[in-house]
Parts: sequence; C-alpha cells; structure tokens
Amino acid sequence: MKIPFNIPFLPEKANIYIQEALESRKHCGNYMFGQRCIELMKEKYGFHEVFLTTSCTTAMEMGALLADLKVGDEVILPSYTFSSTANAVVLRGTKPVFCEVTPDTMNIDVTRIESLITERTKMIAPIDYAGIPCEIDKIMKLAEKYNLMVMQDAAQSFHSFNKNGKPCGSMPTLAAFSFHETKNISCGEGGALVINDPNLIQRAHFLQEKGTDRSLVLKGVKSKYSWVDLGSSFLLSDILAAMLLSQLEHVEKIVKMRGVVTNAYRELFQPYADNGCLKIPVIPERVVINNHAFFVIFDTDENQQQFISLLKEKNIYAYIGYLPLHSSYMGQRFGYQADDLPVTEDLASRIVRLPFYSELQGDSLEYCIAGMQSVLKIIYDL
Amino acid sequence: MKIPFNIPFLPEKANIYIQEALESRKHCGNYMFGQRCIELMKEKYGFHEVFLTTSCTTAMEMGALLADLKVGDEVILPSYTFSSTANAVVLRGTKPVFCEVTPDTMNIDVTRIESLITERTKMIAPIDYAGIPCEIDKIMKLAEKYNLMVMQDAAQSFHSFNKNGKPCGSMPTLAAFSFHETKNISCGEGGALVINDPNLIQRAHFLQEKGTDRSLVLKGVKSKYSWVDLGSSFLLSDILAAMLLSQLEHVEKIVKMRGVVTNAYRELFQPYADNGCLKIPVIPERVVINNHAFFVIFDTDENQQQFISLLKEKNIYAYIGYLPLHSSYMGQRFGYQADDLPVTEDLASRIVRLPFYSELQGDSLEYCIAGMQSVLKIIYDL
Repeated sequence: MKIPFNIPFLPEKANIYIQEALESRKHCGNYMFGQRCIELMKEKYGFHEVFLTTSCTTAMEMGALLADLKVGDEVILPSYTFSSTANAVVLRGTKPVFCEVTPDTMNIDVTRIESLITERTKMIAPIDYAGIPCEIDKIMKLAEKYNLMVMQDAAQSFHSFNKNGKPCGSMPTLAAFSFHETKNISCGEGGALVINDPNLIQRAHFLQEKGTDRSLVLKGVKSKYSWVDLGSSFLLSDILAAMLLSQLEHVEKIVKMRGVVTNAYRELFQPYADNGCLKIPVIPERVVINNHAFFVIFDTDENQQQFISLLKEKNIYAYIGYLPLHSSYMGQRFGYQADDLPVTEDLASRIVRLPFYSELQGDSLEYCIAGMQSVLKIIYDL
Repeated sequence: MKIPFNIPFLPEKANIYIQEALESRKHCGNYMFGQRCIELMKEKYGFHEVFLTTSCTTAMEMGALLADLKVGDEVILPSYTFSSTANAVVLRGTKPVFCEVTPDTMNIDVTRIESLITERTKMIAPIDYAGIPCEIDKIMKLAEKYNLMVMQDAAQSFHSFNKNGKPCGSMPTLAAFSFHETKNISCGEGGALVINDPNLIQRAHFLQEKGTDRSLVLKGVKSKYSWVDLGSSFLLSDILAAMLLSQLEHVEKIVKMRGVVTNAYRELFQPYADNGCLKIPVIPERVVINNHAFFVIFDTDENQQQFISLLKEKNIYAYIGYLPLHSSYMGQRFGYQADDLPVTEDLASRIVRLPFYSELQGDSLEYCIAGMQSVLKIIYDL
C-alpha cells in the first residue's frame, strides 16, 4: 500500500460541469461557472465580493496592488509561511517584516506584532496555517489602532470558522484563498481574492482585467475600454471554475471525510503529546477547523527526520514544513539572520506535516495509522 | 443568423484529454499534459524552452522579471497594443516608451525605433498584430547593436512564420503566446513563455515556482526548497493543459479552416482597397500567417463607426481595435499626449476587426460576407 501526501478530491460532477463549460464555448474568466462559484461563496460565507484568480499567490498580488503597497512601505507577516505571502509584497518593492509564530497553531504570534509596527507599516498579512484560523480579531484591533490594512493569507482555511462563528476571510479587508490541488477544495490551480471593503471593488475589476476599464464597458457605462491602471490577468478559466463549483457543492462532505483523518491522528498522537514527546495542534475553543492538515512538532530534529524516513520505508509520505522565510536567501537580502527569529527557526526544524486527503479512509487510514504507530514506538520506545 | 466576434474551437479530444487529466489526480501545473504540450512545441517550432503560464499577460510578467527590468529602465513598445504589453513593464517600475506603427500590418514601425533608444533602454517589446509577424529580423539587429533584450508579444501569432521560415517566437530571447479563448489555439485562459537563452532557464524555474528552488528538489540536487527569488505562480493547471494539447494537435487544421475566412475577407475587401476606400493587411512576402484575424482600416472614423453599427443590425459583430496606450489615462501619466504619436492615433480611430473563428464556414460565412458586402455598398455607394 502507498499513502501519498495528497490526493485531490474528484466529485462525480466535475466532469459533467466541465463538459457543460466546454460546450458553452465561453471558456475564459468570469463566465457562468465562475459567477456561480462567486454567488455561492458570497451567500454562504458573507463575503462582500469575491474575485476568482489563477492562484492564491496571484490573489495576494492583486491584493497588494489594491492596497497600493509601495517602495518604502512595510508589511508584517509570519516568517513561517509560503514564499508567496512575502513575494506578493516584495514584488511591489515593499519590505517584508517577519514575525514569530506560536507553537500551538504555528500562526503569527499576535503578542509580538505591535513591537514591529513602525511609521512605514501599511499592512499585516497573517496566515491560517493548516486551516487553523489565526487570531484575526486581535489582529483587526491592532490594525484599527494603527490604521493598517489586513490581508489574510487564507490559502489553507477555506470553510474554517473563527471563534465568533465568522468564516475565515470574512473579517479583514482582503483575504486570499487557494484552490490548488493540495487544498480541501481544488481545481488544479486556482484561488480567490475576497474583498470586504466596498470602496475597493471598482479598482479590483480594473486590476483583474489587465488594468483596463472593460468592466465599465460590460456594464454599459463606457463604450470603449482603455488602459487606466496597473493590473494583470487575474482570471480563472470557466473550465476550472466548473471544476471548482463541483467541489464547493460538496464542501461539508469533504470537511467531514477529512475530519475522520484529523480524529485518527489526534487519537494516535495525543498520548505522545501528553508525555511531552511532541506537540500537536491546539485548536482554540469555539474555533471550527476545516480539517485541512495535521502537523506534529517533534522534540528534536533528529526524531523529526527519523519519523519521515522510517515512514517513507513503509511507503507513507510525510513532509517537513516551510523553511522560515527570514533565514532564506531572500530573507537575508532584507537583512535578516536565522537568530533574529529563534522560535520560528526552532519549530520549523522539528515540524512534520502528515499525509492528508479526503479518501484517506478505511484500509488506507488504518495502514497509515499502524505505520505511524510502529515508527513512534521505535523512536520513543514507548 | 448571428455572427459573433469569436467562437473558440473545441476538438472532440478536448473532453477525453480533460477526463484523463482529472483521473490522473494530478491537476496542478507542469504535469503530464503540460509536459506533452511543451515537448510538442519545442520539437515542432524549435523553441529552446517553453513554460506554460496562466495567460500571455503573466508570461510577459515572468519575462519582465527574468529580464530584471528595474525602476529607471525603459522598454520600447508600440502604442497600438493591449495593456498587458505595457503593464508587464510598468509593474516592474519601468517606463514604457511608445513607438508608432505602420499601416500595412499595424505592427511597430521599425524605422522609428532607433531614435527612441536611450542609455536607459533595456528591451524592445514588439507585437505581432492579427498574427502577422513583426519585422523581428530588423528588431534583433537593432537589439544586438545596442545590447538590448527582445521580448516578443506573440499573443496572436502562434504558428505564424517569419519570411526566413522561422516560427514566431523562435528568434528573440523571450516570446509570449496567448491561449485565451479568443486565440486560434486556446484553453480558456492560458499562455506560454518561450525562452531561447539557455542561461535564463534555471532562474525561470525559480520564478515560475513562486520564487523557490523547488525545481532543484525535483531534480534531486537539493533536499529542501526555500525562498530564493522573486516569483509568482506562473503555472497552467494540467486540466487546461489537456485542453491545450487537444488543440495543439490540430493546429494545421485550425489554421487551414481559418484560411478560408481570410480568403473570403480578402476577396471581398480587395476591390475597395484598390479603389483607395480602405486598407487591408499587407502580408510581407514569404511570411506565412496563422489566419488569426483580419482588420480593415477605413478612410474615415465615420465610415468605421457606420460599418460596425450597420453590421450589428444584421447580427454581425465587428469591433474597434485597441485604443492607443500612449493617449490613455495611464499613458498620460507617463507624460504622453495624443499628438505625440499621430500615426497610431489616426489609424486606431479607423480600424475595424472582423468576426473570425474556425467554424465561420459555409452558410455562416456566406451570410457574413453578404452582410458586409451590402454595408460596404451603402457606405461607399459602389
């Protein structure tokens, strides 16, 4: 048996919807299926507006343009994140300012944000690691106090809910989702930018449509469109939107299936966590997670490495987490050294992400759990 | 009967290939179908390397990053082009320098380029309007003389050939193709960056993979990938690559079908061109075009407007061309006025793009030609 790290979910309707999209002969962005995805998301999650994009990466780039980030500005983000959170900022000539994370959730440590705020700070860009919501309420308060924009990198947290019941992405000015094949809801490559400030919508249309006011022509306000702004082609093909809709319609089922995996992992690792051998995610009270992923922070990097290699011998594929951005080649170019964020550096060296997908059920889940159980016994001699 | 401006071609195999891609459970970029598209293009057209992207727009953005365009640099491009040619440059903080076009092809007027070159010029970015190749040989010579890079916006010219027999995109350092639904070969939203300089390939992989060296991990050179560069998610989903392959395999058939449309339009408009009422494209000797589009430059903008409106009454949809970039809101922000490029301003006010798609054949083509014939008779009383 082989347990890969990820298998994208494939609903029966995916092919039917895609065929419908093909036959409509409208294959570019913002057509029928795209509109249906957008309507569904707005209605279900209360987002003010949604723009489907080619990825979460490009959604954040669109957000960075919309926020008018410039040379000399600074954005505070966790060092423990994907390169795209930082590149969206750096592509505008803006400086990333890296913040430590907290081991409970591997999300930005909100107690450390305020000391990083300067006169140049324009934005805070937290992420929801493993689908666990960051403390967005506290971040929003800080942002309000210092008049900063918040762009939430919600790549992994679609259909997760904050402790106040609000869905991830519904609170900050901007939020970006990923529908990459590795996510709960996927269409190969895709993403969405949520915009909760009505004042930003018109410009967002310009940015999405290659910096033209084509949206005003479609509305009948103008007769010819022209070059009015920066922009790119932030548009998801309707073929992929068809795939996306087929998944969005099954989000509860997908999250429930994945919940079985979360529970199995939690049951397996809890005794080791209780013994102090390792740490597992701490889900804050009243938060509802989307069961996107499960991570384990081992006591030493040797045990982390051994866990990954012994599992690989059993054809079970677990992986390391992000290498911290601050100590990467690019991070160093912004003046950072590894020592600057010791908590992140340490945690990142000991974390493991476990295989996780909806169809990891029954025999395959049993094989996976049994394999991990035997590896843990070897490592910890328990 | 209705003659829309465009209907994307849909080969029978599109759905079969897409189903195969779905079932492979590898839906993100650079998988099986993507690789097949790349191999086909490299073998058939002699491109050194090809990167599939989410659009021609993003392919050019990737090219601009690869060319290391910076604040203070200048790029020479025609004013008569889509906003994306300029935005790719402007997003890097680089100044677009607009050049006039020639009425024969509406491509950049090569006799006017040299006078625009300054010490700050880093790149020439010509386009191949309507699929007619620009004079790339002359542009390459200028680029060599002044040590400039050439990035060809070949959005419309996939499978067109220069007078030396070489395919569009095979000569400059960088070339970008569009596979948007409006193009001969399409996958809804998609594009490709052709790179003909081997020294740029490794960095291109970094840029395409969100600024990480993940490509070195896949090669086995490194064990962990990290943040090493700027970058974005310049990746075409394998689901769209499957669609793309189904079209690439039929490129000759598509170009041939479209040739019927070119011939019909040429036959219809030639007498009016001979009489001096209007201009039609002049295809340079030995150039082979891909029959992407057909344009007509009327003698006056009133006749242009009348032609479009009278056709619309017959349910035949022709459109204006680009509004010049130099005189747009954004162009003015770079210091341009309409008067600065009078040739472009004038031609753009009189041009019409005719409906054009592979299935415009038989009855629909006859209806379209008859409709245009009657409108031309009204306008020119001939």
